[in-house]
Amino acid sequence: MRDVAIVGVGIHKWGELWNMSLRDMFALAGSRAIEDAGIDHIDSMYIGCMSSGLFTAQEHLASLLADYLGVLPAPAARVESACASGGLAFRMGWMEVASGLSDIVLVGGVEKMTDVNGDEATFALSTAADTEYEGYQGATFPALYALMARAHIDKYGTTLEQMSQVAVKSHSNGALNPDAQYPFPVTLEQVMKSTLVAEPLRLLHCSPITDGAAAVILVPADIAKAKFKKRPLVVVTGAGHATDTIALHSRKDLTWMNSTEIAAKKAYQMANIGPKDIDFAEVHDCFSIAEIIVTESLGFFEAGQGGPAAEKGITARDGAKPINTSGGLKSKGHPVGATGVAQIIEVVRQLWGEAGTRQLNNVRRGLTQNMGGTGGSALVHILEKRG
Amino acid sequence: MRDVAIVGVGIHKWGELWNMSLRDMFALAGSRAIEDAGIDHIDSMYIGCMSSGLFTAQEHLASLLADYLGVLPAPAARVESACASGGLAFRMGWMEVASGLSDIVLVGGVEKMTDVNGDEATFALSTAADTEYEGYQGATFPALYALMARAHIDKYGTTLEQMSQVAVKSHSNGALNPDAQYPFPVTLEQVMKSTLVAEPLRLLHCSPITDGAAAVILVPADIAKAKFKKRPLVVVTGAGHATDTIALHSRKDLTWMNSTEIAAKKAYQMANIGPKDIDFAEVHDCFSIAEIIVTESLGFFEAGQGGPAAEKGITARDGAKPINTSGGLKSKGHPVGATGVAQIIEVVRQLWGEAGTRQLNNVRRGLTQNMGGTGGSALVHILEKRG
Repeated sequence: MRDVAIVGVGIHKWGELWNMSLRDMFALAGSRAIEDAGIDHIDSMYIGCMSSGLFTAQEHLASLLADYLGVLPAPAARVESACASGGLAFRMGWMEVASGLSDIVLVGGVEKMTDVNGDEATFALSTAADTEYEGYQGATFPALYALMARAHIDKYGTTLEQMSQVAVKSHSNGALNPDAQYPFPVTLEQVMKSTLVAEPLRLLHCSPITDGAAAVILVPADIAKAKFKKRPLVVVTGAGHATDTIALHSRKDLTWMNSTEIAAKKAYQMANIGPKDIDFAEVHDCFSIAEIIVTESLGFFEAGQGGPAAEKGITARDGAKPINTSGGLKSKGHPVGATGVAQIIEVVRQLWGEAGTRQLNNVRRGLTQNMGGTGGSALVHILEKRG
Repeated sequence: MRDVAIVGVGIHKWGELWNMSLRDMFALAGSRAIEDAGIDHIDSMYIGCMSSGLFTAQEHLASLLADYLGVLPAPAARVESACASGGLAFRMGWMEVASGLSDIVLVGGVEKMTDVNGDEATFALSTAADTEYEGYQGATFPALYALMARAHIDKYGTTLEQMSQVAVKSHSNGALNPDAQYPFPVTLEQVMKSTLVAEPLRLLHCSPITDGAAAVILVPADIAKAKFKKRPLVVVTGAGHATDTIALHSRKDLTWMNSTEIAAKKAYQMANIGPKDIDFAEVHDCFSIAEIIVTESLGFFEAGQGGPAAEKGITARDGAKPINTSGGLKSKGHPVGATGVAQIIEVVRQLWGEAGTRQLNNVRRGLTQNMGGTGGSALVHILEKRG
């Protein structure tokens, strides 16, 4: 299999975008990625989207978006793995280029979530859990993650302050990201006194409902070296994908993300490195407790040490292991199908040195972790700057 | 890229299956494929499904179905391209094995369509068209295919008898398929006098609403030769994928399937053959007129000659180019996400010599053509018996 490089990225200001439809957002992000790469065609396209059916009554996105992006008759495929749909689309694009089947592949993600009201959006999102055994019993996602938070608190003594510090850190980063939905800082007190959503989770521990799209362009590393010389070469060195039970009640341990651990191990093995070799990461903080559990499951911190690590500033922009410099799902927003692709964009921009006022110093290796539901699926990718 | 072989298949009796859920059907077809191949694990899995969201309020099928099939923590991906979702899943599985990433991949398709009522099912299916410009104006699929039929009649003089003969032929084949939803013959008179649905299409020109699943097992041809010796080696020699405009009003010609033509040309080129070299085919006869247009777009017949070919019996089981020996979507049923995978199963069984009373004589090369919506996406695969 061939090495694969990222040579173009496209994104836009995320938010509640009343004047943009799903097709508008995807065409904007996609055309920006194509322009950014300086290419005049693509061979193939992947689209990550969780539920265009329930959110916008539109399936068959492959045809719709190839049409509106102007790339007909290119092969196009929509993939879905709930909130990990974007990460899955990236894996498919990586595989297609690595296999030798195509040389230029666009990977995009999109979700239009505000065409329905809040109750309908909560229902649509609940279909990422086990509808028959969780959703129909009334378990929405804040409730499911609240169960995980309570278990983590009981087992490890994780505190409300620690969970809240995750949100404070993410908003501090997102304030420097002009494309973020909520680009402003929040204080520890604001987070801890925000409205209770599902005990112990408060409003500012929860990622928002967001409209948005993101896209990247993949080519073989050899072609990137020969024809895309304006920026440092950024290559995919690790890719891991794993599944876990869809229902929380089937898990042995609510304080651990098995699929994330396994996907990460595969990615580390492929890249021939370990968690200590990762300079920074974008992880799936759909709720603050998720970032804590995920940073432990990735091997960045010992089990139970994710909360203290956030509290001590280790995951801050100037800490030893910066997490979610983009603002994360919390501040940047969480258009579920686009999130995994936007994580790749943040890591690539940091490696290119194009992250603006939130630029990290001396980074060579970044990791992305994107997951679906309560961790029923997870995708981990490792990107490395070469040369 | 490596040659890929099919070494196991699994399907069940399709129909209105009130006592089976989506997960039940997929686990049944998947476990039958695993048992048929005689394997004890899989490396990865692809699931074709159009709209589990709108039909059953369940997304995140990768996690759900890996869980219920008992293959956790294997990577699993759900892909969607409307009614071509099954064909797309097959392409992804083929690519993963061909790339060298995995050695044993399960490709399944599933759709549970009867948990909603008929109006809701018609609405869910309509999301394969352009919701904003077609669906919201009231154009459901029978209406859109009726426009194509009318155009074909006007341009080529295609007759109601010819369209009806397609359905008669399909039911004649399906009567020999124990897994078909409607395994009985129909007469030309019954088809021509059936209830008018959307002029000129009558009820027996239309494929039904169906619950069903199907699965196949893919391995590299080298491994198949060494370890799966009980049956003839069947290899994927051609694979093509293309898109077209999602809305019918954007097409230059309503009597032609551009995406099918382009996907077929890619597949023929990869297999280094032409349409004359194909012994038989399973094609996407969601409506009788679709089979006529598709057999022309595949190059089996000249433009306008698809109707006369059906009338002359050329596409019958004992004709020169047998089409839809399984009964096709019309008689076998059309659980949209499963259809593309079931097409592969029929071709493989014919090549293995395991097609029972509908077995063709002396066949070496079969083709499958699966499409989404009104042809906004199309997948073509060519399978060949070796040795």
